[in-house]
Amino acid sequence: MKNLLIIGAGRSATALIKYVLEQARQHDFFITLADADLEMARRKINDHPKGRAIWLDASKTNDRRDIISRHDVVVSLLPPQMHLEVAQDCISLGKHMVTASYVSKQVFRLGDEARQRALVFMNELGLDPGIDHMSAMQRIHKIKAEGGKITAFYSYTGGLVAPESDDNPWHYKFSWNPRNVVLAGQGTAQFLENGKLKYIPYRRLFRQYRLVDIPDMGQWEVYANRDSLLYKDAYGLQDIKTLFRGTIRHRGFCDAWNALVRIGLTDATFPIVDSDQLTYHDLMEAFLGISQHTGSVKERIAKLIEVEPDSEVIQKLEWLGLFSKRRIKVKNATPSLILENLLLEKWALQPDEKDMVIMQHVFEYEQQRKKRKRTSTLIMKGENGIETAMSRLVGLPLGIFVKLLMLGKISTTGVSIPTMPEVYEPVMQELEEYGVKFIEQEE
Amino acid sequence: MKNLLIIGAGRSATALIKYVLEQARQHDFFITLADADLEMARRKINDHPKGRAIWLDASKTNDRRDIISRHDVVVSLLPPQMHLEVAQDCISLGKHMVTASYVSKQVFRLGDEARQRALVFMNELGLDPGIDHMSAMQRIHKIKAEGGKITAFYSYTGGLVAPESDDNPWHYKFSWNPRNVVLAGQGTAQFLENGKLKYIPYRRLFRQYRLVDIPDMGQWEVYANRDSLLYKDAYGLQDIKTLFRGTIRHRGFCDAWNALVRIGLTDATFPIVDSDQLTYHDLMEAFLGISQHTGSVKERIAKLIEVEPDSEVIQKLEWLGLFSKRRIKVKNATPSLILENLLLEKWALQPDEKDMVIMQHVFEYEQQRKKRKRTSTLIMKGENGIETAMSRLVGLPLGIFVKLLMLGKISTTGVSIPTMPEVYEPVMQELEEYGVKFIEQEE
Repeated sequence: MKNLLIIGAGRSATALIKYVLEQARQHDFFITLADADLEMARRKINDHPKGRAIWLDASKTNDRRDIISRHDVVVSLLPPQMHLEVAQDCISLGKHMVTASYVSKQVFRLGDEARQRALVFMNELGLDPGIDHMSAMQRIHKIKAEGGKITAFYSYTGGLVAPESDDNPWHYKFSWNPRNVVLAGQGTAQFLENGKLKYIPYRRLFRQYRLVDIPDMGQWEVYANRDSLLYKDAYGLQDIKTLFRGTIRHRGFCDAWNALVRIGLTDATFPIVDSDQLTYHDLMEAFLGISQHTGSVKERIAKLIEVEPDSEVIQKLEWLGLFSKRRIKVKNATPSLILENLLLEKWALQPDEKDMVIMQHVFEYEQQRKKRKRTSTLIMKGENGIETAMSRLVGLPLGIFVKLLMLGKISTTGVSIPTMPEVYEPVMQELEEYGVKFIEQEE
Repeated sequence: MKNLLIIGAGRSATALIKYVLEQARQHDFFITLADADLEMARRKINDHPKGRAIWLDASKTNDRRDIISRHDVVVSLLPPQMHLEVAQDCISLGKHMVTASYVSKQVFRLGDEARQRALVFMNELGLDPGIDHMSAMQRIHKIKAEGGKITAFYSYTGGLVAPESDDNPWHYKFSWNPRNVVLAGQGTAQFLENGKLKYIPYRRLFRQYRLVDIPDMGQWEVYANRDSLLYKDAYGLQDIKTLFRGTIRHRGFCDAWNALVRIGLTDATFPIVDSDQLTYHDLMEAFLGISQHTGSVKERIAKLIEVEPDSEVIQKLEWLGLFSKRRIKVKNATPSLILENLLLEKWALQPDEKDMVIMQHVFEYEQQRKKRKRTSTLIMKGENGIETAMSRLVGLPLGIFVKLLMLGKISTTGVSIPTMPEVYEPVMQELEEYGVKFIEQEE
C-alpha cells in the first residue's frame, strides 16, 4: 500500500500530515490531502514532493467515491456524522479506513462486511479516545499477565492551558472543540463505585468533583464523564468493582462552571429571539427570579447562586463580562451558543501560548494477596498555539497507525478500537520517541 | 356537509363522540369512527343509528385516503406526529380537518394550500390548548372594544384531582397523558414581567412557583410554562408588559416534585441497563454521591435535597415507594420512564373517582385612566373516572366546532387556532349549556 488519502485539512490534521509526510520518503508513500478549502490544504502540504492538495466537497458522492477509489487507505477527519458515508464507500470500493472519532452505531454495524472483505476500519485513534485506550490496555494486559486482579480503574484526561500561559482567573483556554466544553456533561454521568452503580445528574456534576494529585503539578479537579460503564466491556473489566472516567480541570473551575450551569447559561434547548438586541447584563437579569431581592444584577446573581458578591466565582463571571452592558453579538442564539461565543473570545489560546494535556490512569489490583496501586501519568505541553500538545496527541497515533497499516503490519480486520497489542505496542513505543511518555508510580 | 370521520377512538374521543352522536339525528349527520381497535370503536358508537365503527390502521396510506375520500370533515385524534399525513390527504382530497393538537411547523406550512382550496384546518381546539384560547380572546377583544389597554395577562391551567377524591399526600392523580406530567418543564421557561424577558431554567422551575387564589378553592401553586412568549402574537398583545402562562398544582406539589428533579429521576437521556434487576432503593442509592455521609438511603436522600428525613417531601417520596426494596418492573428504562410507570400505579384515577380542571385568566388593564383587574376562573369536576372533566373539556369544543363547520357557519379557511369571534362566540356560548362557565371578578 502506497497511496494515502486524508479527507479534512483542519486543525486536527496538522500533526498527522506532518508525520506522514516525514515518513513518506522512506516508505515511498504518496499522500493526497483533500479539503473544500484548497488553500489550507496546500499550505499544509507545503510543496512536499510526496504530497498533493486537492479540492473536495465531501458531501458530493461521485467526487468522493472517485477520489477514494484511487487510494489504498482513507483517513477521515470529517465531522463525525459524515464518517458513515465514507465508510460505506470504503466497503464498496475495498479500502481501509481510519478515524479518531467514536464508533457510531451505524459504523459499528458495518463490522461484518468490513471483516468479510478483509478491511481494517480502525477508530478512536486520537488522544481521548485513543491514547487513553492504548495506554490503559497496555497496563491492564500487563497486570493480568502477571496474575493481578484489577479491582478499580480510574482514568482522567484534560485538555488545559500550560501554567506559563495561564493568565486568566478561570485557568482555562480552548485547545479543542469549544462546543464540547460548553455542552459537557448534559444528561447523567454513570460510573461504578465499590460494586454499585452511581449516577450524577448534570445539576450536581460540577459540584461533585474529585481532587486528584498530578506528579509535580499539584491538585486538580475531576468531574465524571457520562460514559464510564461502557469501558467495562471495551477493556475486558467485567468483574471490576470501581470504574470511573473523568475530565481534569484547574482548581476553582468546577465551582465557577457550576455557577454558569445554575444560572441557566448552558441551556441549548431554546433560542432567544433577537438575542443581538440584548446586553450580557440584560441576559443575566432575565435569569433572575421576579421577586429576587433588591440590589445590582451582580448582587442578585450572587444571591441566586448562593455565593458572596466578592467571591472568586463572581469575579470569574465578571471577568467574562457577564455583568457588562456590551451587546451580545449572535442573533437568535441559545444561551449556550451565546456563552460559547463569549468564551471563544475570552479563552482563546494565542499563537505564542502553550496548551497542556494531562492524562492519568490509576489501577488498583490484587497480586499474590497484596493490594497494589499503579498510577500512570502523562503530562505534555505544546510548542505554541498552533503546534499544540492536543493536536500532536490526536495526530501522532493516527499517523503511526496508518504507517503500520500501509506497511502491512496490522491484521485486525473489521470495525475496531485500538485495544489490541498489535496496535498499542508499536504505537505507544513510537509515541515515546515524540516525548509521549507516562510517569509510572507503584504503591 | 353530512359525513364526519373521526380517526382515533381512545380516551380523548369519548366526549366528542357522545356529543356528535347526540347532534346527529337533528342535523342528519353520519359519523364514522375509525380505529385500529375495532372493539373499542364499536363500544363507543354503541349501535347508534347515525354512527358506525370501522377498522383502520392510519399508517396505511391507501386505506386512510380511501376512507377520508368518503367524508366531508375529518377529526384527527391520532398522536400529533401523524397529523401531517392526514392533513396532506385532506389537502389533496379537498376535506376539512379539525384537531385538538398544537399546530406543528409542517402543518402550519400547509396554510396557503388549504386557503386556496377553501378548506378549514382548525387546530388547538381542546382544553389547553383550546378553551384557554377562546376564553382569553373573548375577554381580550371585549376589553379592547371598550377602550381598555391590557398591560398584563396571566393564565393558569391545571388538570387535577377533585377534593372529594383526593386521598394521597401528593394531592394529584392522572387525568391525562402521564408522560407529559413527568417530562414537564425540561428546558427553560420564558415569560415577560414588567417589560423584561424572564427565563427560568428547569432546575429552578419547581422552586420558583407562585401562589394563586382560586375562588372558594383556596391557594394553589403555579409553575411557569415554557412558551408564554408565543402568545404575544397569537393573542395580538404586542405591547403587553407582563405575560405569564403556568400550570396549577396543589400546595406542596412543587417542592416534592422538585425533589424528584433534584435527585435525577426525571432524566430521559439515558437508559439504565437491566433496570428490572434493581429495586427502587438501589436506584435511589445510585443517585447518592459516593462520599455522602452515613445513614439510611432515606436519610442520605434527605441530606442531598436539603430537607429533614421526617419532612413532608420525604413522606411523599416514601409514599411512592421510592425507598422500598420492591423490584422495578421496566427493563432498560430511563429514570423518567421508571418514574412514569411507578406514578401510573400510584396516581391512577379510579373509576369511582373524580378529576377536576381549574383554569384562570387574570387581565390587568387601563381604562379611562383607571387601573383595572379582571379575573376569570373556570372550575369543573368530572362525573367519574371515565367521564372526566378533562375529557369533556377536550371533547366538547371539538364537537361544537365540528357541528358549526358542518352546518356551514365557519368562514375562516386555512390553518388556524380558535382566536376569532366566529369560532369562540358560539363555542363558548354552547359550552355554558354544559356547565363550562367562568366565574368573573372585577377589581
